Amino acid sequence: MTAHLPHFGQADSLLSIDLDAITHNWCTLDRLSAPETETAAVVKADGYGLGAPLIAPPLAAAGCRTFFVMSLAEAMTLRAALAEAGFADCRIFTLSGIHPGQEDDYAAHNITPVINNLEQFQRLATIGSKTGSPLAAALHVDTGMSRLGFDRDEVAWLRKAYDGGSDTTQAVAPCLLMSHLSASEDLDDVASSRQLADFTALRGSLPQIPASLANSGGSFLGAPYHFDMTRPGIALYGLHPAGADMTGAQPDQALALQPAVTWQARILQQRRAEAGDRVGYNGTHVMTRESRIATVGVGYADGYPRSLGNRAKVDIGGQSAPVVGRVSMDSITVDVTDIDQAVVDEAGFATLLGDSYPLAEMARDAGTIGYEILTQLGQRPKRRFKGGQKSQSGA
Amino acid sequence: MTAHLPHFGQADSLLSIDLDAITHNWCTLDRLSAPETETAAVVKADGYGLGAPLIAPPLAAAGCRTFFVMSLAEAMTLRAALAEAGFADCRIFTLSGIHPGQEDDYAAHNITPVINNLEQFQRLATIGSKTGSPLAAALHVDTGMSRLGFDRDEVAWLRKAYDGGSDTTQAVAPCLLMSHLSASEDLDDVASSRQLADFTALRGSLPQIPASLANSGGSFLGAPYHFDMTRPGIALYGLHPAGADMTGAQPDQALALQPAVTWQARILQQRRAEAGDRVGYNGTHVMTRESRIATVGVGYADGYPRSLGNRAKVDIGGQSAPVVGRVSMDSITVDVTDIDQAVVDEAGFATLLGDSYPLAEMARDAGTIGYEILTQLGQRPKRRFKGGQKSQSGA
Repeated sequence: MTAHLPHFGQADSLLSIDLDAITHNWCTLDRLSAPETETAAVVKADGYGLGAPLIAPPLAAAGCRTFFVMSLAEAMTLRAALAEAGFADCRIFTLSGIHPGQEDDYAAHNITPVINNLEQFQRLATIGSKTGSPLAAALHVDTGMSRLGFDRDEVAWLRKAYDGGSDTTQAVAPCLLMSHLSASEDLDDVASSRQLADFTALRGSLPQIPASLANSGGSFLGAPYHFDMTRPGIALYGLHPAGADMTGAQPDQALALQPAVTWQARILQQRRAEAGDRVGYNGTHVMTRESRIATVGVGYADGYPRSLGNRAKVDIGGQSAPVVGRVSMDSITVDVTDIDQAVVDEAGFATLLGDSYPLAEMARDAGTIGYEILTQLGQRPKRRFKGGQKSQSGA
Repeated sequence: MTAHLPHFGQADSLLSIDLDAITHNWCTLDRLSAPETETAAVVKADGYGLGAPLIAPPLAAAGCRTFFVMSLAEAMTLRAALAEAGFADCRIFTLSGIHPGQEDDYAAHNITPVINNLEQFQRLATIGSKTGSPLAAALHVDTGMSRLGFDRDEVAWLRKAYDGGSDTTQAVAPCLLMSHLSASEDLDDVASSRQLADFTALRGSLPQIPASLANSGGSFLGAPYHFDMTRPGIALYGLHPAGADMTGAQPDQALALQPAVTWQARILQQRRAEAGDRVGYNGTHVMTRESRIATVGVGYADGYPRSLGNRAKVDIGGQSAPVVGRVSMDSITVDVTDIDQAVVDEAGFATLLGDSYPLAEMARDAGTIGYEILTQLGQRPKRRFKGGQKSQSGA
């Protein structure tokens, strides 16, 4: 095996992340809604595992003005990256809300919390009363997740408080009313239309502020779901939220998105195996013929799901080869008997994730969703970012 | 919810890593073998996800002199950490071997490759011939994994070359002969004894250099497997390689190991749900009574496996509560109806992984092995290291 793989450097696998594809996807999603509807970007979990500090500036350059992350730590990292790229005016919301002891950091870094319950609301109101100026926050009402957001009783309290113009409500300046769809990718689930009805009713009874309901799936569900702001996440990264299980208009929607990630790994070794030889831990695969096995430098520690053992395929020199045996911590074994040895030698690497084996298929084979695969990508693969140059130095 | 959780800081979950437990486990494993058998430490995949640069120095202080990682990048990071802690003399082996273009880095950072095939052997020999001094390397022979290591034909070639004292063999100075067990945790699998027999036979026909066969499972299999060096990995981190599926002496062996990781996450919200309410994405759990749900700030992006939805449990204030509904990217939902609300308020956090729900149980419930859970721990949880102070500043 003589191929030089300069891009891999000291690592055994390489993630290529296409910033232009992510920007393209944001623009595609933005065009789904009316011009007066804002399109935010969800870049929590370090931009779904791909690197929020590098992803957000090109999106800001393309016109995105509002970003969502989960925790305060994520927000502070993102604030620094946006400021450095010349986009200090962008809004950053934290979905987990504001917690005791975090008040000063929220103020210092200009982060806006999403308030999920009365306790958080009252904490913010107390700070707002002290400083004399009302504090901006998003109000998150639950319409069917039972996860985060004001519940029915709390919404009733809020409504009463705002109707009466209480001191508490004057110390908080709500800038967004939001809820989250629980099954927006499942066109057969009535949950979405129920949540839409509930959210619409709630909206009429609460302060007249911009409203937002749609995640990626909601963006695709059409205008009634768009309100004043959509908040796509997974679709930015090129994956349709329905994954490999698409119906109706979903395949066409998926075609409009560009995949953002390619993953390649070094072939560490090409070896012979005889009929009867066991492959990998616990010998879950036994060769049935004289074979060649390529051992590839990626494993579950890199984020390649262990559940893909004996299930996935990779591409080597344009030809497909099955993963045989268990996924190890640092390597996988691939049956390359049907590919010319010279082709494998010349290639020097296998493509794990790409056009020939897209994320939706990999996720289906792993028994999970593409979201988990992206966010579980490890730190060990080398990352190379393509595109986005213009925006990385500011708009 | 008024609890202050100062340790969490800007994060929503906290991994506490007990360096003293890891050192204790290394000493325990070291005592399993004879005094003249060296006990190495496998700290690949960033110390099984827990942080190799902080784990290795205390092990070196306890007497460990040889470390194994996978890639050159990992080796260079480890070399810097060991040098800074005053342990520049430790050996570092890379299991993936030496690849084209990496020659200078291997020399500059004093890294020893594990040579897995003839191609790598010949590459090393070429460099050794040029420099005039033989280069140290471990020779890895395959005895039943069909993954990495010299195959039968290559071993025959090696044997002949060494017998004849060829130039090639004089340019490589083998310092370790090793192989890897494929099912050492499974006492019913005959693979281990077959591999032992093969390795013993091979050893007699190759250069008389120190030999190593045992991973953690091999350390527990007893003296015949120990040879000159054992190479424990998973057991250092407190997990017996048999996981939750132990037989024979394995439960006692597991008791001698100390768990190295505790994982806690912030309770973001405690909320009411009514009978009939759906919980989480796609409503996979429906409440059957008036309930309280605690939403906890950890999700699959943090490394909490998505497969634990509706399967895992957490500990809150000393009481157990089931995870209900799907695991989200950033949160889980826990049914806390049977725990007093005041107890949940007072606790403020849930323990995800610890004495009441050990790694082996979590892995079993997730349908995987503890190795994958450890190495898939995300970057978002805050990490706090306990113990190891003396050694972190050098021996």
